[in-house]
Amino acid sequence: MTRVDGRSTGDLRPVKITRGWLDHAEGSVLVEFGRTRVLCAASVTEGVPRWRRDSGQGWVTAEYAMLPRATNTRNDRESVKGRIGGRTHEISRLIGRSIRAVIDYKALGENTIVLDCDVLQADGGTRTAAITGAYVALADAVAYLETKKALRGQALKDTVAAISVGVVDGEALLDLCYEEDVRAETDMNVVMTGDGRFVEVQGTAEGEPFDRKDLDALLELAGAGCAELAQFQRDALARTL
Amino acid sequence: MTRVDGRSTGDLRPVKITRGWLDHAEGSVLVEFGRTRVLCAASVTEGVPRWRRDSGQGWVTAEYAMLPRATNTRNDRESVKGRIGGRTHEISRLIGRSIRAVIDYKALGENTIVLDCDVLQADGGTRTAAITGAYVALADAVAYLETKKALRGQALKDTVAAISVGVVDGEALLDLCYEEDVRAETDMNVVMTGDGRFVEVQGTAEGEPFDRKDLDALLELAGAGCAELAQFQRDALARTL
Amino acid sequence: MTRVDGRSTGDLRPVKITRGWLDHAEGSVLVEFGRTRVLCAASVTEGVPRWRRDSGQGWVTAEYAMLPRATNTRNDRESVKGRIGGRTHEISRLIGRSIRAVIDYKALGENTIVLDCDVLQADGGTRTAAITGAYVALADAVAYLETKKALRGQALKDTVAAISVGVVDGEALLDLCYEEDVRAETDMNVVMTGDGRFVEVQGTAEGEPFDRKDLDALLELAGAGCAELAQFQRDALARTL
Amino acid sequence: MTRVDGRSTGDLRPVKITRGWLDHAEGSVLVEFGRTRVLCAASVTEGVPRWRRDSGQGWVTAEYAMLPRATNTRNDRESVKGRIGGRTHEISRLIGRSIRAVIDYKALGENTIVLDCDVLQADGGTRTAAITGAYVALADAVAYLETKKALRGQALKDTVAAISVGVVDGEALLDLCYEEDVRAETDMNVVMTGDGRFVEVQGTAEGEPFDRKDLDALLELAGAGCAELAQFQRDALARTL
Amino acid sequence: MTRVDGRSTGDLRPVKITRGWLDHAEGSVLVEFGRTRVLCAASVTEGVPRWRRDSGQGWVTAEYAMLPRATNTRNDRESVKGRIGGRTHEISRLIGRSIRAVIDYKALGENTIVLDCDVLQADGGTRTAAITGAYVALADAVAYLETKKALRGQALKDTVAAISVGVVDGEALLDLCYEEDVRAETDMNVVMTGDGRFVEVQGTAEGEPFDRKDLDALLELAGAGCAELAQFQRDALARTL
Amino acid sequence: MTRVDGRSTGDLRPVKITRGWLDHAEGSVLVEFGRTRVLCAASVTEGVPRWRRDSGQGWVTAEYAMLPRATNTRNDRESVKGRIGGRTHEISRLIGRSIRAVIDYKALGENTIVLDCDVLQADGGTRTAAITGAYVALADAVAYLETKKALRGQALKDTVAAISVGVVDGEALLDLCYEEDVRAETDMNVVMTGDGRFVEVQGTAEGEPFDRKDLDALLELAGAGCAELAQFQRDALARTL
Repeated sequence: MTRVDGRSTGDLRPVKITRGWLDHAEGSVLVEFGRTRVLCAASVTEGVPRWRRDSGQGWVTAEYAMLPRATNTRNDRESVKGRIGGRTHEISRLIGRSIRAVIDYKALGENTIVLDCDVLQADGGTRTAAITGAYVALADAVAYLETKKALRGQALKDTVAAISVGVVDGEALLDLCYEEDVRAETDMNVVMTGDGRFVEVQGTAEGEPFDRKDLDALLELAGAGCAELAQFQRDALARTL
Repeated sequence: MTRVDGRSTGDLRPVKITRGWLDHAEGSVLVEFGRTRVLCAASVTEGVPRWRRDSGQGWVTAEYAMLPRATNTRNDRESVKGRIGGRTHEISRLIGRSIRAVIDYKALGENTIVLDCDVLQADGGTRTAAITGAYVALADAVAYLETKKALRGQALKDTVAAISVGVVDGEALLDLCYEEDVRAETDMNVVMTGDGRFVEVQGTAEGEPFDRKDLDALLELAGAGCAELAQFQRDALARTL
Repeated sequence: MTRVDGRSTGDLRPVKITRGWLDHAEGSVLVEFGRTRVLCAASVTEGVPRWRRDSGQGWVTAEYAMLPRATNTRNDRESVKGRIGGRTHEISRLIGRSIRAVIDYKALGENTIVLDCDVLQADGGTRTAAITGAYVALADAVAYLETKKALRGQALKDTVAAISVGVVDGEALLDLCYEEDVRAETDMNVVMTGDGRFVEVQGTAEGEPFDRKDLDALLELAGAGCAELAQFQRDALARTL
Repeated sequence: MTRVDGRSTGDLRPVKITRGWLDHAEGSVLVEFGRTRVLCAASVTEGVPRWRRDSGQGWVTAEYAMLPRATNTRNDRESVKGRIGGRTHEISRLIGRSIRAVIDYKALGENTIVLDCDVLQADGGTRTAAITGAYVALADAVAYLETKKALRGQALKDTVAAISVGVVDGEALLDLCYEEDVRAETDMNVVMTGDGRFVEVQGTAEGEPFDRKDLDALLELAGAGCAELAQFQRDALARTL
Repeated sequence: MTRVDGRSTGDLRPVKITRGWLDHAEGSVLVEFGRTRVLCAASVTEGVPRWRRDSGQGWVTAEYAMLPRATNTRNDRESVKGRIGGRTHEISRLIGRSIRAVIDYKALGENTIVLDCDVLQADGGTRTAAITGAYVALADAVAYLETKKALRGQALKDTVAAISVGVVDGEALLDLCYEEDVRAETDMNVVMTGDGRFVEVQGTAEGEPFDRKDLDALLELAGAGCAELAQFQRDALARTL
Repeated sequence: MTRVDGRSTGDLRPVKITRGWLDHAEGSVLVEFGRTRVLCAASVTEGVPRWRRDSGQGWVTAEYAMLPRATNTRNDRESVKGRIGGRTHEISRLIGRSIRAVIDYKALGENTIVLDCDVLQADGGTRTAAITGAYVALADAVAYLETKKALRGQALKDTVAAISVGVVDGEALLDLCYEEDVRAETDMNVVMTGDGRFVEVQGTAEGEPFDRKDLDALLELAGAGCAELAQFQRDALARTL
């Protein structure tokens, strides 16, 4: 089977990770999964939210949003509507949990890092691109703290990346573009650490319920995809900023 | 290993499904998983939202909320705060997707069913209890439409139920109560149809990332739990209202 | 004249007060006036709002809300609408004033009690049922504080209960159900202490203005009704929890 | 007993009703009860809200608000806070009900009148001044409709006015100013038609509960006060605009 | 050319500045530019916002709003809509900047003055009337602080006033009324100090873009108008309150 | 005088206009004024807002926003705060007016174009960069409509561009960067058409009021700057997309 963009079932789209895209942020990455383009900015502030003060531990959180014309047709701004939608909430929470899975709060000290993931253009997989890019921005922000001698050890326990997988026309595919995503019978987002363990597994039957065999096939594809992404992350971080 | 409430690893808490708890709603259920108590009301209205008009197809949606003192300490009302939190949004969406997985929209005709799941008391597993109860309320609402001759066929394709599973102290457990939930290293919610297929799988590493072996153990427990719940649902629906 | 449910003009509907309906709340009551069913939870917290600090006095407040399908047709959630309606505001304030009328703030000490009154099912008289039930939940919360040795005297000065009265087809009736309420020419809610004095009198002409004779007849009915309710409250509190 | 401003117990403060205070509104009144100053504007629009269309009947509604520096210390604007407070909601609803009590909807035809009551300066009794002034603005708006031949009969069934009464230091007083209001043990607002019947009676125990004797004394005072106000309204409307 | 109200091109409408219109506010002015009528209240509070604490400097801010029936047809309240519109925001900010231009923050000491400008009736030029009136209310509030010995010098560096100018049918006009404003090709608001310097110049092409010659003509008219207004301000402040 | 970045007083920062930055939008531009970087997307929809229907005329509007980490320190999202700030409102309105100045609504036909200007990085002059870039995105959207044969003539009457000017240390400067902007005594934004006429002139005294001589110097600088920008716009549009 050939996919709409010529890939085979287990291929990622072209991945591009551009560090230092912004001048002000302590870490910033423009991450591209094909035409999906997400700007990830890591902002460091001294201190932690009130509920965590005097714990000696840091905090990391994330916010996800989409520009109104990231998509095929324009969406109204959530700021204009005066409320954040359920999807936005859900993805912001997912990114936050994913990123926190590799943080050693004690080593981070009482510092806060906020990861802003803004989708400039969307073509499927925005949340997985966001997690993958946010990790790299986070790593740069942590490096910044290190140069400031503000850490108490190794604040990152591992890398973390994410990929979407799905069943389209009965076939398990890696890294769905928008056109595939809308046709998928089953849709799954998998977040994994660099050592191949799971942080999040979120599978949803869009049409028919799926069985254990489907699930196994998807998890296998995702494992390979996340390993590839981890390599992209390491390569990006190895380049001089 | 003995659990805090004396159960063994694969035991559900006592499950109680009371149909017809409300006088006005077309379907209503008080569902109890141990001390977790959720009131599920199904409201039928003729017609569908604007974007679905003249499609000949129905619509089903869900809203989840918690009374302020459902929990150990009081939470502020979302109506008073003027905004719905991310967790509420996320669970409402999950219930909606789960329930829609067993609906035949064409058979439903241009009717809308709203499922309100209000947590009266929370002790872990409120979203899974809500899905399990909502299905029964939905079935009663569908039966109501049938007596009104408003259906065009069999609107329910299967039953649907949900259960939480998690790893606590290295052990996979079924149907976590609150005390277990806060201690869980991995937490997973699984939604399955009566024929044993998956509708949703949402696994999250709360502490350490989890590996494939953990995942398999959790899915197995969940499969058995959902099968048991499906039986409770069938028994409840077999009773005269 | 016989009423829609067979009562005579001065009859209350069947009243049922179930204490301890929730496991977490310091006081909780499911109160039923016929088919009207309100869950009242009293939450105790140490300390008082900022404006009352270091006064040596406590604070009591109340919030009223209705589940979306408490009524005949479903109402949108105020949390979803993002704002609280005028009716909800008005009733929350009424319950708070009513309850505060029997509180000795000094004896209460710097503690706060919040009374959440959530209407699970509505058939007229939800605000009067809420006040009547909230008092009992309050009494249990005060008893809880007493066992904690957190009081500085007798925090409750009296009991307080409320009932609706109205003129329907020219006849003064006690405790209107929904069907009577919508037909009432005059509608009045009366809140009284156990010693027979008034805390609130709120009479409204729904159709024709009313004269002094109507007012007198309604106040007399209400006085008898509140006295009966006070006995129900005492009986409920006399039972072992 | 002499009151803070030298009045005797049954005296109104100086009442001033200035018609035509605005150039655009179909009816407008600046009403003054002593230092309390409320601007009442009646706006006429053809047509009625959707839920009332094709009923042949009109609609009347009211909104109450206070300028930020109407009071002794500045209050934040509700527009800035993004939500309307409970007190504002409650008073808007009271004014609306009061005014609607004297409207013949059929005679009004499918026209809507909105009464905006904005408190420019507050010294107690703002809601009663608002009702009293709003009636006069309403009468001018009705007269405007009459000149447009847009009525189907006599749209006003009677006049309506309101006054506050209260018990201060054990004495029943008419028309409380702010200083008296904060000291009142019992506080009551009474809305009456020109023929001396009741539209609303809202009595509240601010300190001790009150008994039937207090209630009777307050109602008597209020009756005389409303009669006096009705005369002020008739006099104002008799003047050439 | 004769204007709609008979003025010549460089004429102001009748200007009336009534000080002390409110009893509670530390400064208050009813300012009238023809039929435009704005109530300006200056509220003094000790202390400054958090971000300015311990700076030894004061703070002045402004809020602008319009009553719903200030205009020809009724506008919905921003408090009811739950959000402040762009126009309101913009004008509030303009008034604040204009007034702050003449404040010596050090002389003001750590005191805050809020200027509330509420448009009671609108006939064009509400923002310029608001600035002109707000200055006078401010001066009275500063005088109040002086009598309290709360200043550390001369807190007002100059007077400040504002006027609108515009090109209508090719002719530059001073102080546009509403009817002229809607027909203007170019519309400009100019804020000037008593010594004839500019604080704000805001010119907008409503139809055709304007050229430098138009701009010069408008600035000249505005300069003369502001000088006249400064004299009105001085006269008003010279009168005994 | 040498400026912080080595420019002379009348120099623009390096200007870069990249068309077609997005794949979905009908027109899109990444515009850079030095380190200020704004993404402008033009979205075309058939039809116009309700109030303009059946007029035969089109509509153009704009929305401005800033990513949270566009600036030196992170700003909270307006979507999270639930309300749009005054500055955002003001700039959105300014961009809309500026762009509409060159639109021929009749030639546009009943089509709507929304211009989204999202600041990815801010270093002063974001609103002027936004207007300058938005014009180019608009031109591409108009060209798109032309290829669709959806226009009724020449929809663009001229080009439009904007630049900031200001007085810093007594010297008039063109195109202020952030560091200059915060030190400016006078700050002015000027919007001009390609033929050298004014669309908007907004000058503000940040410190001392400014006199006519300052104003003239600033307008002259701005005129030259806008002419240069118009050339950049023409060059960009001359390139093949």
